[in-house]
Amino acid sequence: MNTLESRLHAAVARVRENWRGTRFIDGLEPGPAGTNALLDVARLYRANRLEIGRLRLLGGRAVAGLFFDPSLRTHTSMEVATGRLGAHFVYLQAGQGGGGTWSMEFEDGVVMNGTAQEHVREAAPVLSSYADVLAVRAFPKGDAHDREERVIRSFSAHAGSPLINLESALAHPCQGLADQLTLSDLGGGSFARRKVCLTWAPHPKPLPQAVPLSVVRAAVLGGADLHVAAPEGFDLDAEEMERARSFCADTGASITMTRDPDAAASGALAVYAKGWGAEQRGEHTERVADLGHWTVGEARMKSATAFLHCLPVRRNVIVTDAVIDGPKSRVVPQAANREPVQAALLLAWLL
Amino acid sequence: MNTLESRLHAAVARVRENWRGTRFIDGLEPGPAGTNALLDVARLYRANRLEIGRLRLLGGRAVAGLFFDPSLRTHTSMEVATGRLGAHFVYLQAGQGGGGTWSMEFEDGVVMNGTAQEHVREAAPVLSSYADVLAVRAFPKGDAHDREERVIRSFSAHAGSPLINLESALAHPCQGLADQLTLSDLGGGSFARRKVCLTWAPHPKPLPQAVPLSVVRAAVLGGADLHVAAPEGFDLDAEEMERARSFCADTGASITMTRDPDAAASGALAVYAKGWGAEQRGEHTERVADLGHWTVGEARMKSATAFLHCLPVRRNVIVTDAVIDGPKSRVVPQAANREPVQAALLLAWLL
Amino acid sequence: MNTLESRLHAAVARVRENWRGTRFIDGLEPGPAGTNALLDVARLYRANRLEIGRLRLLGGRAVAGLFFDPSLRTHTSMEVATGRLGAHFVYLQAGQGGGGTWSMEFEDGVVMNGTAQEHVREAAPVLSSYADVLAVRAFPKGDAHDREERVIRSFSAHAGSPLINLESALAHPCQGLADQLTLSDLGGGSFARRKVCLTWAPHPKPLPQAVPLSVVRAAVLGGADLHVAAPEGFDLDAEEMERARSFCADTGASITMTRDPDAAASGALAVYAKGWGAEQRGEHTERVADLGHWTVGEARMKSATAFLHCLPVRRNVIVTDAVIDGPKSRVVPQAANREPVQAALLLAWLL
Repeated sequence: MNTLESRLHAAVARVRENWRGTRFIDGLEPGPAGTNALLDVARLYRANRLEIGRLRLLGGRAVAGLFFDPSLRTHTSMEVATGRLGAHFVYLQAGQGGGGTWSMEFEDGVVMNGTAQEHVREAAPVLSSYADVLAVRAFPKGDAHDREERVIRSFSAHAGSPLINLESALAHPCQGLADQLTLSDLGGGSFARRKVCLTWAPHPKPLPQAVPLSVVRAAVLGGADLHVAAPEGFDLDAEEMERARSFCADTGASITMTRDPDAAASGALAVYAKGWGAEQRGEHTERVADLGHWTVGEARMKSATAFLHCLPVRRNVIVTDAVIDGPKSRVVPQAANREPVQAALLLAWLL
Repeated sequence: MNTLESRLHAAVARVRENWRGTRFIDGLEPGPAGTNALLDVARLYRANRLEIGRLRLLGGRAVAGLFFDPSLRTHTSMEVATGRLGAHFVYLQAGQGGGGTWSMEFEDGVVMNGTAQEHVREAAPVLSSYADVLAVRAFPKGDAHDREERVIRSFSAHAGSPLINLESALAHPCQGLADQLTLSDLGGGSFARRKVCLTWAPHPKPLPQAVPLSVVRAAVLGGADLHVAAPEGFDLDAEEMERARSFCADTGASITMTRDPDAAASGALAVYAKGWGAEQRGEHTERVADLGHWTVGEARMKSATAFLHCLPVRRNVIVTDAVIDGPKSRVVPQAANREPVQAALLLAWLL
Repeated sequence: MNTLESRLHAAVARVRENWRGTRFIDGLEPGPAGTNALLDVARLYRANRLEIGRLRLLGGRAVAGLFFDPSLRTHTSMEVATGRLGAHFVYLQAGQGGGGTWSMEFEDGVVMNGTAQEHVREAAPVLSSYADVLAVRAFPKGDAHDREERVIRSFSAHAGSPLINLESALAHPCQGLADQLTLSDLGGGSFARRKVCLTWAPHPKPLPQAVPLSVVRAAVLGGADLHVAAPEGFDLDAEEMERARSFCADTGASITMTRDPDAAASGALAVYAKGWGAEQRGEHTERVADLGHWTVGEARMKSATAFLHCLPVRRNVIVTDAVIDGPKSRVVPQAANREPVQAALLLAWLL
C-alpha cells in the first residue's frame, strides 16, 4: 500500500470513528466531527485526484443514481467521483414515459391498477441488491413545500444499501458538504466564528428550500456566524431551522435573521445567494416583482470576500453579471467541490 | 492466476464445452447442459462478486445495451454486471424524439423517405464494431402479439457480435435464467422433479407472454414438474409451448395445464405469478374484471414454499401485500439473481 | 512499460510535436502533420484494441459528453473509446424537459427570467472541473444554416479542459478524421493524389453541411484530388471552402467542383455520398423532387472502388440497396473507424 493509499485509509478510519450511519439525507447525520473527518478525506482526494483514480480503490463496486429531476452538476460530479474511484455508476432516469424506468408508487396498501407500475417497496431493495450505494434525486412535484419528502424517505425505509440524497424538498446535503469545503477554503481551513451571509434573491419560480436549508446546516456544522436575510413572507421552514439551531451550542455557531441584505452581507466571508418560494406560494410572482433590489450587485458585495451560489443561477435576476463574472465570484470552484465531497462519502462507506 | 480466477476459467470452459452459440434470444439456446454450466458460473460470481470485480477480468471489453422500452432491473443488473467485471457498458435509448438514438427501420427494400432515419442493416453491424456484446430490449408495440419479433430477429441477423435479448415479445431469457437459479436455490441446488406453479394473475393491460413463456422454458430446462394455471381464453402461445415441451424427454420435465390455480399452487416449491393478455386482446379488460379471484393471496400460498414474480408487480392486483411482504416472498433475491446470470453470459463469451 | 505501451507513447509524442492545441472543432486544428500523427495513434489502437484496453492507460480520467441531439455512432464510439482506455465517460442529455440537464442560455448579458435555467458561462467551466475532456454535440436548431455555431463556440470560449466537437452546424471533425483513416485504408496507407468524389444526394430534409464540409477538410488534409458534385443551388458554404482550400498548397490537394455526379465518380477511390440542404432552404423539398437521378446506384459506382457514407443513411433515397449491400460498400468499417480516431484524440491529450 503506497503512502497516499494509507493516508486515505487513515482519513476514512477517522470518519468511521465518528459516524457509522448509512444514510446521508439532510446532511446533519455525520455530526460536526464526522463532517470534519469527511472534509479531510475530500481534501486528500481533491489534491490527488488523478493519482487516487489510478489506484482503483473501489474496483468491483457499483453505485446506482436514480434521477426524478434534471441535473448537471449533481449527476456529473457523482458519476465522475464514482468512476474515478474505479467503481461503476449506473444513471437511471426515473418515471419517463417512453424511456427510463417504470413509473413508481410510494403509497402503502394501494391497489395498483392505475398508471404506477412499480412500488418503491420492490424498487429500493432490488436496486440495493445490484448497487453498493444508492443515490436518489427527487424534488417535490409542482410548487408544493413537501415536508414529508416521500420519495427519499421511502427509499430510505426500503433500501438495503447506503443511501445518498441528491436533493429532495428539504435538503441538498452534498451541496451543503461541498459548501463547507468552499467556506473553509475561503477561511483558510476553517470558517468557525466567521460571518457568513445567506441572502434570499429573486427567482421567477417558488423554488423549494433544499439549498438554503442545507446552507444553514452547513454553516451551523462549521460553527459560522450565520446571517440570513430574507424579505417578509419568505422565512425558511421553522422546524428545520430549529433542528439546525440545536447544533449551535456544540459548534459555537450562531444564526441571526434579518430583513436587511446589506447588513447581512457587510464584511461577510461569503455572500451566498439563493431564491426560494414565498410562504404563500400563490403570491410568489407578485411579491418577487417588487423585490428587484434583492438581486446581488456590486454595492452589496463591497465589503464581502466572496460570492457563492449553488448553480444553476439566473444571471441578472439572482446576481448581476458584474458580480458573478468578477473577482469575488467563487461559484465554479464551489461547484467543483461537489466531486471530492461525494468521493469522500463513497470512500467512507466502501473503502 | 489466483484460485478464484482459475475456478472461473474452469467453469467457463464447461459452458463452452456444451454451448458455442453467440445468440441468447429465447434462452433455450444453451440447452440443459449449457444452462447448468452457466448457472455454475453465476453461482461462483454471486458468492465472490466483490473479489471477482477487483480482478477486472473483462478489462478492455465493451457491451452496448439498446433499449426500446423502459427498464429498472434489466438495465441496472446488465450494466452493473458489465461494469463489475471491468468492461464498459454503453446505455442507448432507442428512437426517442429529442434525445437518444435515431428512429429505426427494420423492413428490407423500403424507400426511406419517411420518418425512419437509420436501418438496422447498418445499426447492428456498426454497434457490433464498437461493442463486444450487444444487448437489445424491444417489446412489441401496442398490444400486438408479435410472433415475428422483428426487432430482436433483425439485430440477430445483422449483428457481428454475440447478442443478448433483454426482453422481446416472446422471451425474456435472462429472467428465465435467473429464475432457474432462484428455483434451484429453493430446491437446495436443483428443482428437478419438483412441482413449480406458474399462475396467470390479473393485470389491467394485455401484456405479452415473454415472461410466462420464459418461465415455462426455465422449468423445462431444469426438469421441473410444471403446473400452468390460466383462465379459459388466456392460454399461452401453442407453438412456443410445443417447442419447450420438446425438451421434456431430455430433462425429465413435465407440463400440466389447468384452470384451477389452487390445485396448481398446492404443495408447489414456488408459485410464480404473472399477468398476460387475453387471446382476444379486445376482450382483455372485460375478462379481467371477473377474474379477481386469480390474485394470489395467502390462502393460495398456504402449502407452497415460495412466491415469485419477475417484477415490476402491481400490488393487490397480481398479489396481495400480505403475500409479497410475507415470509414466503422471494421476489427480491429473485431479482438480485439477474446480475450473476448475466455476468455468467458475459464471462462465457468474453473471458 | 511493455512494447505496445512504449510504441503508443512514442506515437502520442509525435502528435504533440506537431499539435499542442486543446480544441478539435473543425478538424483543421492539428494541421496535416498533426493529423497524420493522430492517424498513426489510431492505427496502433485499432490493431491492438483489447490489449491496449487492458492497460487502462487513462485510468483516473473522466470525459463528459453533452448531447443536444440524437446519436448512435458518435455516442457509442466516444463512450467505448473512453471506457476501453480505462477512463470514465459521463453521458449528458442536454436540455430535455423532464430529464437530462437544465435548459441553457448562450447569450451574454441577458436577464435570465425566462425558460433558460443555466448559462454556458457556468456550465462549461463546471463540467471542465469534473471532466478532463469535454465533448459536445449541437446541431443548428430547425433548418437554419448556423454560421455562428453558438453552442460549440460558447463552450470553447468557457471550457477549461480540452474540447471535442461531436458535430455542429459546420463541422463533424471526428467523422472527418475517421474518413481520413478509411480513405487511407482504401489507398493502401495514403490517399494523396488519389481521386475522391464527394457527391450530393437526395434527402427529404435540408440537412446542415457539417459532414460534407468535414469530408472536404479531410480530403484536403490528406492531399486528395477531390471532386465535389452538387446540383445548382446546393453549393457548399463558400467561406468554409475557401478556408479548406488554403491547405491545398501545403498537402498537394486539389478541389474540382462539378454539376456532373458521373464524371465526379468515374474512377474514384471512393464515392462519398451525402445529402445537404438547398441554399434556398424554403425550396429544398421542391428541388429534391426533381433530383432523383442523384441517388447513387450501381451505374455511377461502375469504375469507382468504394462507396462511403457517414450514416445514418436513407436507403433507396441517398443510395440504392444494391450499392450499400454490395461489395464496394465500406460504410461499416468507415463507422468502425470512429472509435480509434477518437481514442487517438484522448490519448494525445491525456496519456
